[in-house]
Amino acid sequence: MNTQISATWYRGGTSKCWFFDAAAVEASGHDVSTVLASAFGASDARQIDGVGGATSTTSKAAVITPTPGADADLTYLFAQVGIGDGRVEYGSNCGNCASAVGLYALQSGIVAPTGDVTDVRMFNENSDTTLVARVQTPGGEVLFTGEETIPGHQAPGVRVDLGFERPSGRSTGRLLPTGNALDELADDSGLLMRATLIDAGAPACLIPAADLGLTATELPVEFAASVPELKRWQRLAALAMGLATPEDPISDAIPKVGVVGAPRDYVALDGTEIAASDYDIAVRMVSMHAPHPAIGITSAVAVAAAGGVEGSTVARILPAWDGNARERTIRLGTPVGVIETAITLDEHGDAALVSTKRVARRIAAATIDLALA
Amino acid sequence: MNTQISATWYRGGTSKCWFFDAAAVEASGHDVSTVLASAFGASDARQIDGVGGATSTTSKAAVITPTPGADADLTYLFAQVGIGDGRVEYGSNCGNCASAVGLYALQSGIVAPTGDVTDVRMFNENSDTTLVARVQTPGGEVLFTGEETIPGHQAPGVRVDLGFERPSGRSTGRLLPTGNALDELADDSGLLMRATLIDAGAPACLIPAADLGLTATELPVEFAASVPELKRWQRLAALAMGLATPEDPISDAIPKVGVVGAPRDYVALDGTEIAASDYDIAVRMVSMHAPHPAIGITSAVAVAAAGGVEGSTVARILPAWDGNARERTIRLGTPVGVIETAITLDEHGDAALVSTKRVARRIAAATIDLALA
Repeated sequence: MNTQISATWYRGGTSKCWFFDAAAVEASGHDVSTVLASAFGASDARQIDGVGGATSTTSKAAVITPTPGADADLTYLFAQVGIGDGRVEYGSNCGNCASAVGLYALQSGIVAPTGDVTDVRMFNENSDTTLVARVQTPGGEVLFTGEETIPGHQAPGVRVDLGFERPSGRSTGRLLPTGNALDELADDSGLLMRATLIDAGAPACLIPAADLGLTATELPVEFAASVPELKRWQRLAALAMGLATPEDPISDAIPKVGVVGAPRDYVALDGTEIAASDYDIAVRMVSMHAPHPAIGITSAVAVAAAGGVEGSTVARILPAWDGNARERTIRLGTPVGVIETAITLDEHGDAALVSTKRVARRIAAATIDLALA
Repeated sequence: MNTQISATWYRGGTSKCWFFDAAAVEASGHDVSTVLASAFGASDARQIDGVGGATSTTSKAAVITPTPGADADLTYLFAQVGIGDGRVEYGSNCGNCASAVGLYALQSGIVAPTGDVTDVRMFNENSDTTLVARVQTPGGEVLFTGEETIPGHQAPGVRVDLGFERPSGRSTGRLLPTGNALDELADDSGLLMRATLIDAGAPACLIPAADLGLTATELPVEFAASVPELKRWQRLAALAMGLATPEDPISDAIPKVGVVGAPRDYVALDGTEIAASDYDIAVRMVSMHAPHPAIGITSAVAVAAAGGVEGSTVARILPAWDGNARERTIRLGTPVGVIETAITLDEHGDAALVSTKRVARRIAAATIDLALA
């Protein structure tokens, strides 16, 4: 039997993602995992009999359900499709794909453009959170090509700012779990370390680079030597933030941990020279046991949100915030280059939306032949 | 500007190929290389902004022109699209893609089915040769799924036998350039080696495995030790066949060189046990300076054609050919498993068609967004 299903292929940042309409998956008579594994040729490590690209960043999909009239414009389920084992995993979300979902919503007509930018509200089923994709629609026009780029890839696309709504306190219930803008962590030997412990996007521990003898403009290979010490402070931060008790096993992922520093000239991983004037704060984050080559989107949210907390390790570096301004752009100097984030405050001064700049582009619209029995 | 172009994605054997209609490329207003490089995202080593798969077997395309009423049903130009440099090369053909072009011709309506099998005649512009794809069309039905497999990949597809028409003498003008079914090569020290020197598909030098102390059922890792000696006989064969003069630089590719042996049980690269009764002749070929992991399609043609030459190193192994039979199947025992070839003789006993079994499947039909200025 020849089973076909429509799908659309997008690049979001440095990932490629296939989007499926949930109704089309339903109509196929097969469950989501069966459809995706077949479409991608997932059982083969080369994905040679399907649309998958056989790498983690090219074996991604989202199943999208328009929800007109609801709080969000659509809901979507992100899927990491197996490479060589036919399994499909739903345990994570992907910021790159999410930004492309926003563009898809406009290009497919789920959302109509509203002006120079159009907000697409997207409920992500994996993380149980609502994201906002602010898509460039100049003069109300839906774009199919764009000239914007982000660090990490030279190909241009349509600008999509991917925002987290009310990112504060999602893990601990409070933006500042310790109640302090600046904490002093103490290890067993009595050594002290200043840090801002913040819960926005993800729980994060942000340490002044200078306190570790760093500048936060190091290349990952240089930053690596400081990772073991940062892993120790990460553990103490987890305890201080109430994310773990002393009896719990050590988490490599929570909280995010890294260092921040004042802008200074540095060289990005691809050799690009970044001037101090090109950005607002230097950041070097740890990913598991190694330097992060860029910055994760949730860590970017934490840094941006900390920028709004007076006295934090981040706010001490940034220029003072105009008290009347509701929106602020913070440019993060990362190993791959400058990543733009924006924070919008509500009337109480709380972060209503924290977003990072992305680009997306449709690659193809397709009818896929599924190899199903 | 948003430029779109229709294309269809096929798996042919162990490759993925994108097919474009020549008229659609023409209509785009851009040259073929520009369209393909853009569609594939070729300038990037990850091909992240296009439909390419960033490996040599997934960065292939063909531009197809239907030619109804002509000797061939269609002509096509094969393209190997660059990975990281934006170049597109046209110096070779690809048997895997060619078999898929045959299936495409039926699925797209270029050729109508004629019975249980349908022959598609295809002129390949790269090699200036006509290939014949014999596509399974049981009861005149165009298939979109199939249950056939070939060694090297477990995914099933529609059977397509890819044939070379009149493959004899294309390089030297004669099937047997020396005029002999069996030659004896002599090196400077007077050492002798028996070989069949044949020109069919490609010029080839086929040596009895036993004369080298081999069986032709070795794994590539075992066969590797004999490669240096085979390279010496390859050079002498090139001289004997008139493919080179002593002053010419040594070619690593011409003629193809390898050993043949009688069937015996062996174990394929993936661990499959192949019984002597599963095949007709064992073959181990050299690819440049290393054992070939399977067998190239032109080498398979040479072995099959040699099977029709009485007294050749191949015919001495095969059972006698029924003098009245015009068609014969020869199963080649290769490192990846058994590859089926077939040879059809004309009324003079010359090879009219030599084919190998392939499988193909359509993966998707798409409209690609080109990122063109």
